[in-house]
Amino acid sequence: MAALIRWAAMAFRRSEAVEQAEAVEQVRPQAGLASRYTATRALSVALAAPLSDADATAQSMPDASPAKWHLAHTTWFFETFVLRDHAPGYCVHDPRWAHLFNSYYEAEGPRHPRPHRGLLTRPSLSEIVEWRSFVDYALTVALPAFDAPVRALVELGIQHEQQHQELLLTDILNLFAANPLLPPIWDAARASAPAPSPQPLRWFAGREGLVEIGRDQSDQGFGFDCEGPRHAALLTPHLLAERLVTNAEWQDFIADGGYVRPQLWLSDGWAWVQANAIDAPLYWRRAEPRGPWRSFALDGLHSLRDGDPVTHISYYEADAFARWAGARLPTEAEWESAGANHDPAAGNQLDAAGAVRPLAAEGDGALRQMFGDAWEWTASAYHPYPGFRPAAGAVGEYNGKFMSGQMVLKGGSCATPRGHVRASYRNFFYPHQRWQFTGVRLARDR
Amino acid sequence: MAALIRWAAMAFRRSEAVEQAEAVEQVRPQAGLASRYTATRALSVALAAPLSDADATAQSMPDASPAKWHLAHTTWFFETFVLRDHAPGYCVHDPRWAHLFNSYYEAEGPRHPRPHRGLLTRPSLSEIVEWRSFVDYALTVALPAFDAPVRALVELGIQHEQQHQELLLTDILNLFAANPLLPPIWDAARASAPAPSPQPLRWFAGREGLVEIGRDQSDQGFGFDCEGPRHAALLTPHLLAERLVTNAEWQDFIADGGYVRPQLWLSDGWAWVQANAIDAPLYWRRAEPRGPWRSFALDGLHSLRDGDPVTHISYYEADAFARWAGARLPTEAEWESAGANHDPAAGNQLDAAGAVRPLAAEGDGALRQMFGDAWEWTASAYHPYPGFRPAAGAVGEYNGKFMSGQMVLKGGSCATPRGHVRASYRNFFYPHQRWQFTGVRLARDR
Amino acid sequence: MAALIRWAAMAFRRSEAVEQAEAVEQVRPQAGLASRYTATRALSVALAAPLSDADATAQSMPDASPAKWHLAHTTWFFETFVLRDHAPGYCVHDPRWAHLFNSYYEAEGPRHPRPHRGLLTRPSLSEIVEWRSFVDYALTVALPAFDAPVRALVELGIQHEQQHQELLLTDILNLFAANPLLPPIWDAARASAPAPSPQPLRWFAGREGLVEIGRDQSDQGFGFDCEGPRHAALLTPHLLAERLVTNAEWQDFIADGGYVRPQLWLSDGWAWVQANAIDAPLYWRRAEPRGPWRSFALDGLHSLRDGDPVTHISYYEADAFARWAGARLPTEAEWESAGANHDPAAGNQLDAAGAVRPLAAEGDGALRQMFGDAWEWTASAYHPYPGFRPAAGAVGEYNGKFMSGQMVLKGGSCATPRGHVRASYRNFFYPHQRWQFTGVRLARDR
Amino acid sequence: MAALIRWAAMAFRRSEAVEQAEAVEQVRPQAGLASRYTATRALSVALAAPLSDADATAQSMPDASPAKWHLAHTTWFFETFVLRDHAPGYCVHDPRWAHLFNSYYEAEGPRHPRPHRGLLTRPSLSEIVEWRSFVDYALTVALPAFDAPVRALVELGIQHEQQHQELLLTDILNLFAANPLLPPIWDAARASAPAPSPQPLRWFAGREGLVEIGRDQSDQGFGFDCEGPRHAALLTPHLLAERLVTNAEWQDFIADGGYVRPQLWLSDGWAWVQANAIDAPLYWRRAEPRGPWRSFALDGLHSLRDGDPVTHISYYEADAFARWAGARLPTEAEWESAGANHDPAAGNQLDAAGAVRPLAAEGDGALRQMFGDAWEWTASAYHPYPGFRPAAGAVGEYNGKFMSGQMVLKGGSCATPRGHVRASYRNFFYPHQRWQFTGVRLARDR
Repeated sequence: MAALIRWAAMAFRRSEAVEQAEAVEQVRPQAGLASRYTATRALSVALAAPLSDADATAQSMPDASPAKWHLAHTTWFFETFVLRDHAPGYCVHDPRWAHLFNSYYEAEGPRHPRPHRGLLTRPSLSEIVEWRSFVDYALTVALPAFDAPVRALVELGIQHEQQHQELLLTDILNLFAANPLLPPIWDAARASAPAPSPQPLRWFAGREGLVEIGRDQSDQGFGFDCEGPRHAALLTPHLLAERLVTNAEWQDFIADGGYVRPQLWLSDGWAWVQANAIDAPLYWRRAEPRGPWRSFALDGLHSLRDGDPVTHISYYEADAFARWAGARLPTEAEWESAGANHDPAAGNQLDAAGAVRPLAAEGDGALRQMFGDAWEWTASAYHPYPGFRPAAGAVGEYNGKFMSGQMVLKGGSCATPRGHVRASYRNFFYPHQRWQFTGVRLARDR
Repeated sequence: MAALIRWAAMAFRRSEAVEQAEAVEQVRPQAGLASRYTATRALSVALAAPLSDADATAQSMPDASPAKWHLAHTTWFFETFVLRDHAPGYCVHDPRWAHLFNSYYEAEGPRHPRPHRGLLTRPSLSEIVEWRSFVDYALTVALPAFDAPVRALVELGIQHEQQHQELLLTDILNLFAANPLLPPIWDAARASAPAPSPQPLRWFAGREGLVEIGRDQSDQGFGFDCEGPRHAALLTPHLLAERLVTNAEWQDFIADGGYVRPQLWLSDGWAWVQANAIDAPLYWRRAEPRGPWRSFALDGLHSLRDGDPVTHISYYEADAFARWAGARLPTEAEWESAGANHDPAAGNQLDAAGAVRPLAAEGDGALRQMFGDAWEWTASAYHPYPGFRPAAGAVGEYNGKFMSGQMVLKGGSCATPRGHVRASYRNFFYPHQRWQFTGVRLARDR
Repeated sequence: MAALIRWAAMAFRRSEAVEQAEAVEQVRPQAGLASRYTATRALSVALAAPLSDADATAQSMPDASPAKWHLAHTTWFFETFVLRDHAPGYCVHDPRWAHLFNSYYEAEGPRHPRPHRGLLTRPSLSEIVEWRSFVDYALTVALPAFDAPVRALVELGIQHEQQHQELLLTDILNLFAANPLLPPIWDAARASAPAPSPQPLRWFAGREGLVEIGRDQSDQGFGFDCEGPRHAALLTPHLLAERLVTNAEWQDFIADGGYVRPQLWLSDGWAWVQANAIDAPLYWRRAEPRGPWRSFALDGLHSLRDGDPVTHISYYEADAFARWAGARLPTEAEWESAGANHDPAAGNQLDAAGAVRPLAAEGDGALRQMFGDAWEWTASAYHPYPGFRPAAGAVGEYNGKFMSGQMVLKGGSCATPRGHVRASYRNFFYPHQRWQFTGVRLARDR
Repeated sequence: MAALIRWAAMAFRRSEAVEQAEAVEQVRPQAGLASRYTATRALSVALAAPLSDADATAQSMPDASPAKWHLAHTTWFFETFVLRDHAPGYCVHDPRWAHLFNSYYEAEGPRHPRPHRGLLTRPSLSEIVEWRSFVDYALTVALPAFDAPVRALVELGIQHEQQHQELLLTDILNLFAANPLLPPIWDAARASAPAPSPQPLRWFAGREGLVEIGRDQSDQGFGFDCEGPRHAALLTPHLLAERLVTNAEWQDFIADGGYVRPQLWLSDGWAWVQANAIDAPLYWRRAEPRGPWRSFALDGLHSLRDGDPVTHISYYEADAFARWAGARLPTEAEWESAGANHDPAAGNQLDAAGAVRPLAAEGDGALRQMFGDAWEWTASAYHPYPGFRPAAGAVGEYNGKFMSGQMVLKGGSCATPRGHVRASYRNFFYPHQRWQFTGVRLARDR
């Protein structure tokens, strides 16, 4: 645990300083952390509000987890790594639950097998919500007495819970999409969008030569271990598309045989297309073979809005589209060096529970949609940066052990809690996965 | 549909006569049918009473169905084959639900894939219960006007629902057994049983030579098509064990290497044992490798009661046990010719919702446990009787198309609704399946 | 081994008597057995003559074995159960080979996994043939000194080898069918057949009431344990078709939607059709979707001969065809009681190495094709006869342990060595298997 | 085809110049190419010399191909892309064979499914060898008349065949290892090696800062498209181990729980270890649980030689070993910038048919084993270099479409034909694959 604390403390260093500053205004020094803790915990519960006990329990596929499990697992994280270890006298709510709600921390012992999470009908959703209150109360009471390393663990738990908020949304979307009734999760009036004016895609030159990317230990605020160390990267002359690829453009790709021409695909991607009979993004549906496409979303089944960014596509699809378009995917360094000039808290991101969805790019004359709307597949494998060292202990399993076979995505999506993402943030998924809000921005050599 | 009516009418013929007799006493001729309808429908809901929405929605394995699905499917059966087709003006509650709750009737169109029944979190349990009320009201109102063929369909629906009551119980048992918390479904005080006195198993000679088995069209009461035609069968000299094999005897089998000696097993059975690391009946558990066995049941985890019949064993296990014991399984004809002398409504069967379980045989001097406690594996394949003809139409898919690869079981279990079973009843499962209350009675050549 | 000997001796009892009679003519009492041994062993090698080392080594699927493996396994059988155990001073050729060429005798120790038999490129085909000579010489020298029980083992080995001769033929047919070049194994001139005259199928009444079937211990000649005991069976009034179903009739079945109408199929069969995209017998091919069917056989790809019996169909297909035809499959007892009046050595069976194939029925006025041409699927599960006891010891694994999940086939095929089959013979395969020369004769209730 | 020629011509540009120089001495200008063609083709046949027809036909797993298939596929390459397209009047030997021996060129039409290559017992090994002679004769006759672009295709075919020579060796090793008899492919006297003196591993500093890697179009000799363009890369301060990890060191890793401690492994790697029960390099064997390890090689089963480099390990194993050793894998750029100073034709590489194997490092005071002995796993994904463009046409499928999910290996092995490898060479395999001669050199941050 010492290692965990050390690492979290390190991550926390500068955010601490910021809060110290805040503290001046707020009199009570822990206010910043406490209020963010409270707000984060409340948002999770709000996201689950439209769900029945059954909705919150079912698991649509092994990659996804039940909403209830997300609510419980994030609570287990705080109970285990903060309260159990650092709040004297705290008594674990139910010791048998650790087995159920540990995700993948080998150091914390064996776990309930992931593909069977949907069979845990007990404890119920309301028992889990009650447990959350229990933990929240205890943590709020204990927080003022925590020293910096433990407060860093609390910060880590908040960031961790924000990640699970996004997963919770994408996992229930996946579940509801598996129900032939296609029920909406939130009702939302959705005016039909004006057709986008067919303007040619504009391109912006990125920086070239040596740039610095990655997160420095001295950077403000929170960051995960895998985002650093900060290091130099070498960029070749290139252009970045002004915005994400749209639904209209994706329909052109389909109409031009995008899913039936092997020469557009990586070998692994073509095998995936054939084995799974892929012919459109994950949630696109149509009533008859050549009818118009519709799309299923958190607010139910709707007509496609042509100008909105395409989402729920795999890396293989993103790569094939880019090849078809005579372009390529940006590298992580290209993306990050451009993204560093944008406000990571701007754009279409998650503020409150509801039917979030990607939106069409607006305005012009600049790179847009760098943050929010859709995670952008890059051409870069999720590998360690030079000099990367994962922390020892359980929390060292957070990122490093997944650095194999996955690709980096940048920029956050409409389901990413505002404030969670930044230019150095490294999201990662396997090239065939597409149940997240994943999209694509094109790049080209210059 | 005409074919369905004709067949159901045929099945109903004699039960009609009986009810006509009842009718004399009860003034209103439909009383018998109506009251059984009401009681059956009420029992299903009572069985689901301890279940949360999530409990009722989850599906533990493709062989099992969610409790909610059972409640809905049986309702679909009445709504489709009775109300839609025979109640003028009846308006189907939600036409989209047929797709969800049709089980395997190819003639009724495509269905939601069986392994994904657990993803149907909507409609909710309470919506299904409401639908049940809707259908029950409509059917009760319409019933007096139905002529005999349609009343026969109602009878068929009752029998069908009774089958699903047993499945509902065994499916939720399977679900709760998959939860590491092993929650009880019903609480029950269970006094520890006295150790059974070790008496040698007694054997009773069965009939030999030509006997008649199977159900005659002129038999009283309801019967499924596959139970007939009545026909002669030839019995060789044989003995039947007085009672079912017990938990004590099964522990002897294990202790004697029952699960590790290939020579005791059919070739397919041995492959099954090895592929699934089988070493005990389905719900037996022990905390450490050589510790005492416990058993999970509807009322939670308990010590084994040595004198109770062993249940939740596959045909392969039953067959291996018999070989180990120097005996064999009875044939269907042997069993039925003996069973015909016993009251099918006697014994330990399902009367009301609660933690039913098999009980130790009591008394002596006679064949016992022929009905109730556990379905008894026979040595007979589930094949058509001479002259069997399934009905045309959707209901013709009820039994005939499953006559391949499965084995016959006789006698009903503690989870079979009282009144549902009879000597000619032919239950059937694949040889590896064991999540029903399945047990074994030995037989021997004489 | 004592048990094996006892059992083989029992099987041999009467064939002994016959050979004693032969012996009068032939002076040397063992002549009958020795000459049959020699002829059988020679036929196996002749069957493999057109095969290259590679042809004899490849394994087309786990159900099949390489030709070389058949040649070796049958030799292992003689070397192990006869020479090793009963020929003093005999030294096993290569002790490591037992591991490679034991098939499924658990009592003889672990084996090379069946699906990997095709990887045994060493020992080579010529080394195996050399080993065969070595064993043949030793056995021929030792034979005169063997007493009856050991000679019974030799007889068993001959019968065993005859079974493998048929498998060798069907396995190499399966292998060659997997080669896009579709090479013939033997060249054969095949004149085009005259179109069969379209006569209505005639039916013959079978016996009814009590009949005796199964093999008696006192019967002449060899028999497998599973063929007995002889016992009474009860036949209902029925008709048997005069001949096997033809290719012409099967094309009618296809044209009438035989493979696309679920109501014609058992539930398991329909699942098999869909999972494997089955639309014709195993070796039927056509160049374009609606073009004429051709068939691949031991002599290569040929036009279908309409009057020839259809072969290479599964039980599921045979059953669906019968349902389509308004008929059913005969039971084993119906078939055997009719077959008992026919000469089992008559008909189209294997006499010498070459491109054997089923032939059109000739003549009329009688049941034809009862023996030879194609194994006939029956409606009977392969279960033990009343009173059946497998022998103890390794050879007890020969038949009994397979009595689960398989169906009985009767009558032998064009690939069955003449003299090997008889009315009581019980062949058995799983309902989906169809790489043997399997066909169908219809039956009907009378 | 034009595109293919253009690309090959480009690749050939400089090697041409070299041969022009040679030509002065040899009078006949094509001598260089012709003699290398002849030598390469002869080596392939020599590698297959110890193989029987069966050995050359069997396929041990879908990743591997039969030796005969390698001999045929390389011939198909010359026949199709050179003779068919550029030798007027050339008549394809057997047009049906293209379907059998095309590997993965979608543009050349459908192919025989890869997992079933082992079922192609026909054409035979000798027919393939005869075809080779036929093609060799035709190509040798036609060669003098070919212009540069076509000669570039011949060069490409030679390089392609060299790749298949290495695969042929590793594939037959895999096949022979699947035979319980563990037959040697070549006999070889192998003196037992002196125990290596236990010296501490020495490390050498690599270059740092900006370096150039990748192949330039103006480089001498042949190169594959994926090796370029030449581009700048940025190296951080690092050390490279003087030599490959040895068998002795790997045994230390095992003894220290290398295969049972999840914290040493990538998440995907740990799942692979558990699913496949991995506990040692691919061909290590031991007779009893704690006995000494032996290793199977082209010359059969031998004691481990402690000082030899470990081979036949996966990327997951290499990565876990490095983590255990407190080191890491080198990046491709680190390796290449060091390798550029070494003679690529030096070291232990394939010169002639025989039991090649990795050898212990000799000498000291320098980086050793950079070329030959074992392919070295790097930490770099096999992704395109900046500005990479695959050629259009069939040959464009050679490399580019595999740039997903695989890792780069550098340096060649004892089975790589001498002259085939160079510093810019990029070999690639999936992280779980290990049937090649794969090893590991450690790196460290400085």
